[in-house]
Amino acid sequence: MASELHLLDLHGSLGSPVIESMNFLNEVSHRFPDAISFAAGRPYEGFFDLDDVHRYIRTYCDHAAARFGDDPALVRRHVLQYGRTKGIIHELIAENLSVDEGIEADPESVVVTAGCQEALFLTLRALRRTPRDALLIVLPAYVGATGAAELADMPLLPVKSSADGIDLTDLAEAVGRAKAAGMRPRACYIVADFANPSGISMSRATRERLLELAVEHDFLVLEDNPYGVFSAEDAAQPPTLKALDPDRRVVYLGSFAKTGIPGARVGFVVADQRVESATGPGLFADELAKIKSMLTVNTSPIAQAVIGGKLLENGGSLRSANTRERRFYQQNLRHLLHGLAKHFPPGSTPEVTWNTPTGGFFVVLDVPFPVDDALLEHCARHHRVLWTPMHHFFGDGQPRHQIRLSFSYLTPDEITVGLERLAGFVFELCATARG
Amino acid sequence: MASELHLLDLHGSLGSPVIESMNFLNEVSHRFPDAISFAAGRPYEGFFDLDDVHRYIRTYCDHAAARFGDDPALVRRHVLQYGRTKGIIHELIAENLSVDEGIEADPESVVVTAGCQEALFLTLRALRRTPRDALLIVLPAYVGATGAAELADMPLLPVKSSADGIDLTDLAEAVGRAKAAGMRPRACYIVADFANPSGISMSRATRERLLELAVEHDFLVLEDNPYGVFSAEDAAQPPTLKALDPDRRVVYLGSFAKTGIPGARVGFVVADQRVESATGPGLFADELAKIKSMLTVNTSPIAQAVIGGKLLENGGSLRSANTRERRFYQQNLRHLLHGLAKHFPPGSTPEVTWNTPTGGFFVVLDVPFPVDDALLEHCARHHRVLWTPMHHFFGDGQPRHQIRLSFSYLTPDEITVGLERLAGFVFELCATARG
Repeated sequence: MASELHLLDLHGSLGSPVIESMNFLNEVSHRFPDAISFAAGRPYEGFFDLDDVHRYIRTYCDHAAARFGDDPALVRRHVLQYGRTKGIIHELIAENLSVDEGIEADPESVVVTAGCQEALFLTLRALRRTPRDALLIVLPAYVGATGAAELADMPLLPVKSSADGIDLTDLAEAVGRAKAAGMRPRACYIVADFANPSGISMSRATRERLLELAVEHDFLVLEDNPYGVFSAEDAAQPPTLKALDPDRRVVYLGSFAKTGIPGARVGFVVADQRVESATGPGLFADELAKIKSMLTVNTSPIAQAVIGGKLLENGGSLRSANTRERRFYQQNLRHLLHGLAKHFPPGSTPEVTWNTPTGGFFVVLDVPFPVDDALLEHCARHHRVLWTPMHHFFGDGQPRHQIRLSFSYLTPDEITVGLERLAGFVFELCATARG
Repeated sequence: MASELHLLDLHGSLGSPVIESMNFLNEVSHRFPDAISFAAGRPYEGFFDLDDVHRYIRTYCDHAAARFGDDPALVRRHVLQYGRTKGIIHELIAENLSVDEGIEADPESVVVTAGCQEALFLTLRALRRTPRDALLIVLPAYVGATGAAELADMPLLPVKSSADGIDLTDLAEAVGRAKAAGMRPRACYIVADFANPSGISMSRATRERLLELAVEHDFLVLEDNPYGVFSAEDAAQPPTLKALDPDRRVVYLGSFAKTGIPGARVGFVVADQRVESATGPGLFADELAKIKSMLTVNTSPIAQAVIGGKLLENGGSLRSANTRERRFYQQNLRHLLHGLAKHFPPGSTPEVTWNTPTGGFFVVLDVPFPVDDALLEHCARHHRVLWTPMHHFFGDGQPRHQIRLSFSYLTPDEITVGLERLAGFVFELCATARG
């Protein structure tokens, strides 16, 4: 007798639209490998170098050797044995946050994770005590955030977006409604800088008001910041929420997938909140570490050495390590916006508009037709260009008149050709609609 | 106002005895760094070599280059970019299972994970649909298994151990009791070879009967096999449960922490079960991959390359890769058993007995007094030797007359000195008790 399982007997997250979204988007990319992809939110590969990996590991090991009195056995143990649950590059990460973000973090409040996704799950799992514990989230939202919440059995409390990233009036109302319904809003998930998918950055005033609301209504802010480094050279990006956070309301989620090397799969969380218990106060980071010890035990110290070496070689600054990358993405962004203006001049038909982020990886297009997955498939097959229907970031399957364009993975020439194809698709579709 | 959290508002697993156990045991080791430790179940470090890591990565990349038509850009993407959720060394792992274990696994049924702990969590999270879904577990059990179940909100159904690893009568009764109480036993967690903490291996007959019971009562068997490779050179170890599994009842959990390099943090799960759904049948591995996409996205391909290179350099055989290690652990085991017989001859007082595993990392001592954590601290402070009180593997805090000795991390000389100290402790304690 063959053993059979049924999807309806497996964890509820497995049947969710979020998972279906992730699956569909992956699968479409695989089915049309030769399409130009504005869909992949991946870092550009042209700067990847395998020799870097070997050198970073050696740089980190030299650093560790100096710390361990040049005892090679201790260096080997440090990098090759089971290691500290909270990680081994926590001090380098704290230095990086100080250098790049003006965040002064106690290294003991840092937990190094198997990518930022694990940092997010650890935090949500910790905050989800009962089915009443819920997560405030601005929609449209990063699919990984809604996915992690579903995996942690944490209900979502949607909050409206705005031109400034978040509608704070709606946030306060969402909190009120949730509390009235017996729910407990534990945290609000936010990408304050060049959000995925919207590309929007929050103003300093909005950041400050959000923190005030967090204190007032007693919730945490989960600040996810994978794109902050990729700002314009000359533009002053507002401080991160964590840098504006005297009340320790912010749990800061960090990723090295875009600024370090994706293949290292190293991220981190700064969780400096105090946790009271019968045995006295502790750090929230230490509670997250306990969960991590049951989830992945510790983050590969070899992978941490890769990121540690990159930090060491750049004086702790990922902005400086990514000078070349930042220029490349900025050039792509200008090229994309310029190309859009050429193909869709203002006031012409069909009316296509877009927002104008000043950094990050994403631009959002407003189009005069509802966009569903069938349309993406049509476009991929007949126009050989991929992008992401925005409904995937709302998790409800309702088509929106919007698509997300990612400009991180392509060369300027590919963007040029991709936009021609995209314009061809839009014109074909509008002609069909009129016809 | 400083934000405060309270432990009672965080996930229930954080207050559990399992977490307390993990914390206490880590913390004791740190407080007595100069004690000889029979507590650490870590692999011996004497064979660690950083040059191996660099060479393994190069070996793997050469292999990938051959596969990708020597296109260096594709190799860089393969190892440095975001990657396949189920991993990149799945074919090498399937080959290893065939070579070493006689398991013929479809590579598509393999999910490469951030250590075996993630494999376990993925599986439990998938199987836990409602609070009725429970895990059968033989006590004493590996702390990471009970911890992962608590993190997945999955209740435990304890099953009695036996000289053959599991009391199958008690298992059948536990299933009956659980079903009568409205619970659904989804799986039974088992280490069939040289279990942690007991050191016991199950006979072939018991393995076969366990699989029959799994079919009869419709549960899965989660076979965790970190120690199977470390058997005696000349002794035939019974086949793994997965090799005896025509009905696809077994989910096989694999670790490279002891056989590969702990610092790579790479493990895997073989989940070849069929999953029925409205859209047709799929593989359980693909459902686990969906959960992984929300948990850690993918396992570091750089870390996978380290393990992949080691597999490639050893013709897919971890037995062959660990010839030196296996001899070392076998020598340590003989040395430990010999030393115990010298210090505690049969029939003498105090009466101390122990089991005699033929491999793995662990031996269990029966002592004529109940062992709690205070006693371990006393022994560490005054006798400078560490070991593990067995109550930690029952999760109930009730002192047992047993301690676990791990012999993997020490040299023979350290074992000699450690046993002298341990004997000193036992004699002191029995003298006090008589006094």
